[in-house]
Amino acid sequence: MAARPMAMRNGESIPSSTRRWADAGANDIMTFLYKADLERGAEWGRLFAQKAPELPFHLWPYEGDPASVRYLAAWTPPEDIARRFPNLEILFSVGAGIDQFDMSGLPPELAVVRMTEPGIAAGMVQYVTHAVLGLHRDSRHYARQQQQQIWQARRVRPASACRIGVLGLGMLGRAVLQQLHGLGFPCAGWSRSPHQIDGVECHSGCDGLDHFLARSDVLICLLPLTDDTRGILCRALFAQLPRGATLINVGRGGHLVEDDLLAALQDGQLSAAVLDVCNTEPLPAGHPFWRRPDIVITPHVASMTQPDGAVDAVLENLRRHRAGMPLLGLIDRRRGY
Amino acid sequence: MAARPMAMRNGESIPSSTRRWADAGANDIMTFLYKADLERGAEWGRLFAQKAPELPFHLWPYEGDPASVRYLAAWTPPEDIARRFPNLEILFSVGAGIDQFDMSGLPPELAVVRMTEPGIAAGMVQYVTHAVLGLHRDSRHYARQQQQQIWQARRVRPASACRIGVLGLGMLGRAVLQQLHGLGFPCAGWSRSPHQIDGVECHSGCDGLDHFLARSDVLICLLPLTDDTRGILCRALFAQLPRGATLINVGRGGHLVEDDLLAALQDGQLSAAVLDVCNTEPLPAGHPFWRRPDIVITPHVASMTQPDGAVDAVLENLRRHRAGMPLLGLIDRRRGY
Repeated sequence: MAARPMAMRNGESIPSSTRRWADAGANDIMTFLYKADLERGAEWGRLFAQKAPELPFHLWPYEGDPASVRYLAAWTPPEDIARRFPNLEILFSVGAGIDQFDMSGLPPELAVVRMTEPGIAAGMVQYVTHAVLGLHRDSRHYARQQQQQIWQARRVRPASACRIGVLGLGMLGRAVLQQLHGLGFPCAGWSRSPHQIDGVECHSGCDGLDHFLARSDVLICLLPLTDDTRGILCRALFAQLPRGATLINVGRGGHLVEDDLLAALQDGQLSAAVLDVCNTEPLPAGHPFWRRPDIVITPHVASMTQPDGAVDAVLENLRRHRAGMPLLGLIDRRRGY
Repeated sequence: MAARPMAMRNGESIPSSTRRWADAGANDIMTFLYKADLERGAEWGRLFAQKAPELPFHLWPYEGDPASVRYLAAWTPPEDIARRFPNLEILFSVGAGIDQFDMSGLPPELAVVRMTEPGIAAGMVQYVTHAVLGLHRDSRHYARQQQQQIWQARRVRPASACRIGVLGLGMLGRAVLQQLHGLGFPCAGWSRSPHQIDGVECHSGCDGLDHFLARSDVLICLLPLTDDTRGILCRALFAQLPRGATLINVGRGGHLVEDDLLAALQDGQLSAAVLDVCNTEPLPAGHPFWRRPDIVITPHVASMTQPDGAVDAVLENLRRHRAGMPLLGLIDRRRGY
């Protein structure tokens, strides 16, 4: 039977093809539903039409039979997900994190999968590399000098003088460390459980945190946001860094205690921060972060899922699902990431 | 015999040791003279004292016997070099370029050597990587948004959408290309003579320039400054780039026709420029470059010779010189670099 044409924001529809997905019976339509940024959703639609024309793909809102929805890709799923889609098998996050999902509202047997497409790591590596080099090479200082028409050089310090510490050794943390190590920065990483990464000093657990912090001139947060990590970037942690250290938060706003950052900048324990995420997004006008010359704010753009890689990652997981193989990026519901 | 104590800017002197360098006769002192930034010169002195204590090292000005000066490391050598130091054998540039030397005033048999220490390339890679990522990831746009307290995301484009072109395939150009290729940017290079670099589209000669320019969204100048390359960054060249391209000049100010850059930015052929070098340095107050939001100015700090690597590079060349081996970084006086 023919799948419905997809609803596209710009009014175009992609011709559907006869469904052959998973060789299911005629009444067993397996619909893939997308509920996130519509512009990128339209690209997902085009890519699904090319790469899996037999799988009915729909953009949210979906007006077909909710019982046919087996797969949902979402930034924030609808609240009544279990009741609304009784046959849902996999919930894909369109982002690398899944902290935006309320796990308690999700059926326990539902597979929840984070996005692992390589474009996310590539974007994160670009953003963090730019931030680290900007801090290391005094880019804000030179921007101020330009405003004042001052031509005055500071000594270029070698990368070896700037020790990097990355909190979180998942896909993103590892990719960032590999890049910064390649640029010659002395690199360390910290994670809950032990890791081994070539050229990177790896620390783990509560016991490993002190030593890790004491040697980190630039601290980069790439942790998942869980009950254990919420508020980890706080006064007590900043106090363990070398005086004048800098912070790059590309995890989640919830990792940071905002007042503690302001206090640490004020008293010189930290000298600068680059924040791509905030507790309240968009960061409200009038928030003290906006006007500080020692804080760089970007609007949650460190990395974005690239549709091409995302559709490949999703289709690979659908193949694995059908074959009974373990899904890539499957969330451990007890661990929370 | 004992070498003289070094004159140091801060008044300290480093104890000299008995001279054993090159097993020359007692009347054949071979002095190494340094004439450049004094702060870094003091570090050269400490490193020479550690690594080659038998070689008399002096900071400019030198009050000993000019006939003993066999080696001179300088940013700008004294004008009367041939008359003043009749036994000079090697002139080392303390920087990667030698365009600051007036070759016509140098004895034809004098070996002129550019600085090849790895810290120069490392610094250049850092600077250019930061500049490219800043252009690619809209850092000036987000800085303006922060001033206006605006939280608004632009789509992150993949590195594959931003084609890099490097003019000049010497040590620095190759190091920069290797790094940017690793970050996923499509990379091409252009040089006078043919080169081959893994993963980089190499063009050469006048015939290769058109195609190279037509595919370069970000043009990076790392050419030596010679009669052939002076003023190469001009209106006619900008017109061959894709509309809205950007320029990073980390070569020399003399490569750029400043009025042509202003015109190209004004009419939109170029969208931004990052300039670490200018025709007149320091860039004079009131120069139109200072106030343009589409120009980033830094005061010739893309890269600096690191004393540790520099002393190693110089001592390696002294060993080669004594052994009659070819010097590393020797200038071809006809070619001019």
